[in-house]
Amino acid sequence: MNLKDKIRSIPNWPIEGVIFRDITTVLEDPDAFRHANDLFYERYKDQKIDKIVGIDARGFIFGAVLAYKLNLPFIPVRKKGKLPYKTISAEYDLEYGKDTVEMNEDAIQSGDQVLIVDDLIATGGTIAAAIELVQQLGGIVAECCFLVELPDLGGRKKIPNIPIFCLIEFEGD
Amino acid sequence: MNLKDKIRSIPNWPIEGVIFRDITTVLEDPDAFRHANDLFYERYKDQKIDKIVGIDARGFIFGAVLAYKLNLPFIPVRKKGKLPYKTISAEYDLEYGKDTVEMNEDAIQSGDQVLIVDDLIATGGTIAAAIELVQQLGGIVAECCFLVELPDLGGRKKIPNIPIFCLIEFEGD
Repeated sequence: MNLKDKIRSIPNWPIEGVIFRDITTVLEDPDAFRHANDLFYERYKDQKIDKIVGIDARGFIFGAVLAYKLNLPFIPVRKKGKLPYKTISAEYDLEYGKDTVEMNEDAIQSGDQVLIVDDLIATGGTIAAAIELVQQLGGIVAECCFLVELPDLGGRKKIPNIPIFCLIEFEGD
Repeated sequence: MNLKDKIRSIPNWPIEGVIFRDITTVLEDPDAFRHANDLFYERYKDQKIDKIVGIDARGFIFGAVLAYKLNLPFIPVRKKGKLPYKTISAEYDLEYGKDTVEMNEDAIQSGDQVLIVDDLIATGGTIAAAIELVQQLGGIVAECCFLVELPDLGGRKKIPNIPIFCLIEFEGD
């Protein structure tokens, strides 16, 4: 199966000149969704991973399935103000201004091997902040995995030294 | 396993006098997370369900695992402005003001039997809006399932005639 063909491309969204890669068509196709989740599982089933971190909100989808299949803890990274317990936080830049993500302060122990899951890497701001959260607690980011990478937006440069795995690439975006 | 014991109760959050039921402790405990997902799966594996709807953001976690296990389409219901394709929308009341949820307009076909998944039912505003979205497209809501119910907040009254299934109940909230 060519997963890339299952992504819906939407021209001029959210702004003129941008092609948005819509992953909901993968979620709504059970064979494609199963295939994507199974590819992640095959990659990580024999690796030393202690915890799965999923990023709010679409990272929850693939992260939760992977955590379930690997029988590992699932740690949500959430937008500011959504987690009720004691949290740590990290900021990242938006086009205009900043945003903040948070994680439970007891979610990761020092030395934990952590896999971070999100649906898409573009400029890399969110994933860099999620890595910072894991590292604040002494965790080691074993890898970051994504359904889709937009390599022209330079996300990898923002997180040097961290292994990245992507199932689909759209160049020329 | 008593799943209720796995929920972390946080007094006076988000406001004085409220006990917040924090489900992240279930997510972070692989045995509890597996148990909850397996209870949902056991309930629905022999039922006639065509599609799983998950509500942004924590409903994505249990909804995605269930869709994967049942090999069914996963349809996200999202906060306004997050879905790039053609959408339908429904409003619901907040304590002050209103909020809007959206769904892809091609996600449900007339006559589809739909299961809606969320982590928690309190006053029932969000789930009522999600039901309205499914029904706008001619879908039939077979059931709504939740990890946690706060029955004293009256959510069931907001969605009469729709079957509800919950794994955990906290009365006296």
